[in-house]
Amino acid sequence: MLSSPALTATQALHKIDQGFAIQSLLQDCLAQISAREPVVKAWQCLNSAAAQQKAERLDCQENYRGVLGGIPVSVKDIIATADLPTEWGTPIYRDRNLGYDAAVVERLRQAGAIILGKTTTTEYASGQPTQTTNPHNPNHTPGASSSGSAAAVAAGMVPLAIGTQSVGSVLRPAAYCGVLGFKPSFGTISRFGVMPVSREIDQVGCFARSVDDLALLCSVLMGSDRRDPDCWTQPFSFEVQRLIQPPTIGLLRGPFWAQVENEGQAALMGQAESLAAAGAELTEVALSADFTAYFSHIETLMMSGLAVNHGKDLAQHPDQVSPKLRGLIEQARSLPPLAYGRARQAVVHYHRYLNSLFGRVDAILTPVTTGPAPIGLENTGSPLFCALWTLCGLPAISIPAGTAANGLPLAVQLVAPPRADARLLGIADWLIQSSKFAMN
Amino acid sequence: MLSSPALTATQALHKIDQGFAIQSLLQDCLAQISAREPVVKAWQCLNSAAAQQKAERLDCQENYRGVLGGIPVSVKDIIATADLPTEWGTPIYRDRNLGYDAAVVERLRQAGAIILGKTTTTEYASGQPTQTTNPHNPNHTPGASSSGSAAAVAAGMVPLAIGTQSVGSVLRPAAYCGVLGFKPSFGTISRFGVMPVSREIDQVGCFARSVDDLALLCSVLMGSDRRDPDCWTQPFSFEVQRLIQPPTIGLLRGPFWAQVENEGQAALMGQAESLAAAGAELTEVALSADFTAYFSHIETLMMSGLAVNHGKDLAQHPDQVSPKLRGLIEQARSLPPLAYGRARQAVVHYHRYLNSLFGRVDAILTPVTTGPAPIGLENTGSPLFCALWTLCGLPAISIPAGTAANGLPLAVQLVAPPRADARLLGIADWLIQSSKFAMN
Repeated sequence: MLSSPALTATQALHKIDQGFAIQSLLQDCLAQISAREPVVKAWQCLNSAAAQQKAERLDCQENYRGVLGGIPVSVKDIIATADLPTEWGTPIYRDRNLGYDAAVVERLRQAGAIILGKTTTTEYASGQPTQTTNPHNPNHTPGASSSGSAAAVAAGMVPLAIGTQSVGSVLRPAAYCGVLGFKPSFGTISRFGVMPVSREIDQVGCFARSVDDLALLCSVLMGSDRRDPDCWTQPFSFEVQRLIQPPTIGLLRGPFWAQVENEGQAALMGQAESLAAAGAELTEVALSADFTAYFSHIETLMMSGLAVNHGKDLAQHPDQVSPKLRGLIEQARSLPPLAYGRARQAVVHYHRYLNSLFGRVDAILTPVTTGPAPIGLENTGSPLFCALWTLCGLPAISIPAGTAANGLPLAVQLVAPPRADARLLGIADWLIQSSKFAMN
Repeated sequence: MLSSPALTATQALHKIDQGFAIQSLLQDCLAQISAREPVVKAWQCLNSAAAQQKAERLDCQENYRGVLGGIPVSVKDIIATADLPTEWGTPIYRDRNLGYDAAVVERLRQAGAIILGKTTTTEYASGQPTQTTNPHNPNHTPGASSSGSAAAVAAGMVPLAIGTQSVGSVLRPAAYCGVLGFKPSFGTISRFGVMPVSREIDQVGCFARSVDDLALLCSVLMGSDRRDPDCWTQPFSFEVQRLIQPPTIGLLRGPFWAQVENEGQAALMGQAESLAAAGAELTEVALSADFTAYFSHIETLMMSGLAVNHGKDLAQHPDQVSPKLRGLIEQARSLPPLAYGRARQAVVHYHRYLNSLFGRVDAILTPVTTGPAPIGLENTGSPLFCALWTLCGLPAISIPAGTAANGLPLAVQLVAPPRADARLLGIADWLIQSSKFAMN
């Protein structure tokens, strides 16, 4: 029997406080990895020896160990680590050691976390999938591009993982793997040391199995950093902003509702009903016609970013770049000259419209995926329902919402206004608690 | 004799506190406008009647009048005002009333300022000049695009004016007109209600005749606003951060030093010497080779923004758009597809490099223009020396530095790291005080 792997970070920290050995916690994680990794394949590389040394050192440490003292964390392999290779999901950078820590890794280490290893990423966090399988059924994709991070948390290998989202790469795999996935507001977490897809949309996100854990992780990761010109958060203490009364929720089916499978539609409507039953005020909201272009706009930014940042890798190693990535870069090179500017302008209009919605509702409840994880590993699923919030830099969270007939997880998405991250977690927590109550 | 127009806002507020009538202060401003406006032509429209009513009301008001209670301010005519036309410098929008206040105008009114009118802007804040002349010599340009705002402050018509800078539109006219021009860090002042040139580079700036006035104005203007997706400053009290010891200054001639005229070069080097004499530590700094592309990058963003935001005006009113603006929009439409993305990426690299410089120096001392205001009104001068700091969103200030042989003002520029606005004003104040000392 494995006890601790199912522990959340918050629970584990509580046990450590009461004398539970960090080495035992780590052993339980490593045992879970041994048991499940042959099938799940979540890890690009594992740092067991260093992790064990650190656990031993922390166990001997008399003084305060930090906010995440002793908690094993996995990091997506597009994020730089000084002591492990950073391969970006491409054979071009196999075994490449960048020799420095990304800002988020620095912060994790300062907080006493144990960086247990790097979890898989699709090629350049783009379309070419990894070998990682869905922990709920190895014949299904775990989603992408933070595939390994989502799978590792879902399989109980680590309580916390770091990923990134430029279109739908945190919330989608979280939804498919049945864990919480949270992408905070744009600009709150430094991207220094994170491989760029596109400056305009790249955002760091978190995987966990409880809202408290997400808040704990954010309190460590958030903060200003001059090395990321778009990261200007002033340091603040971050914790879940608990609700004192039921929230007002805007139910948004959106322009692409018809693309949501029946089970996904039922999951969203069921969640809405259970929220209403618990006392939330529910109101249907809609987007204006110009929102139908959002996916094309985010594609422009994503493809252009890949071309600008990684086009030279394609030129130098054409045989080691997947046809998918080559296609994206070539498409970027034939975009209309004003496409990028139009995308950036559209976001200003979207913000204006969404501001008016958020004048009426505390958060938006909306689909996160088209349904449960697709079969096979080649199709990692559609980021369509995550893309708008990524494009606008709004905080968004994926929350498990039951299971499909095939046993795979379903999920819904909650979105809040810019910088209302703490409040969004409060609403998410309220939703989860009230759903539990409804099930009893 | 006109007494008050030469008063700074800080001095005027002090006099008002001691019983000086706001109506008298306003009368002095209006008298100065009567005397000089026929030649200077700084105003697009003047709101004398409403201003006088407001002054009267404020004089009768017993309770606190606000941070800028009773101070006349002028606003560049690309900034929306509910009670006055907003014409964007184009006949297409002659007499157009937008019916709402820009965020900065709201804030000015809340602070008790008197919006005395709108000062001229070049066409769409772009290249086609206004009729405004340089207050020091009407045969010379006042600079652009915030031509009227700079000229109005320089001519003693108002103590404070608001402008905008997308390339060099605050600091350049400030330099040519011999007043202080300050462009704070990107994201600190909301652009809601400001005509967009380009989201990436548009920034609100201030004109004044003292550093204390700039700080006063910034304390009113700065603050977060959800209506501008890039404005995330958390509210803070803003005041000059006075130095407790002499600063370390990086003297930067930069890759375009050869384009600075002899008098401009002498002004910069003279300023550097006087700083050193006053105890500052001076060190020469240089930019890496890739900085030579910065002007081309900002042009890409500026032209693309004009095309995206105003291209339809060109289509609908081709006969009312200047050849200059038409040229910029057409150039944008034939840019390479990756130009915009490359410009945005370059800024990330520039930031990284400049961060390393700012690890060694408190501020950079560098040219602000190629020399004094050019002759004629058609050539508004080059924004070359302002563009890099605008592109990178760094706070920058233009400080008068003597006069050229032809009697026109010379100036230098100080630049600080992102968000070091209060410290930059402190260094500017120190520079001004130590120069005064050196002259005695």
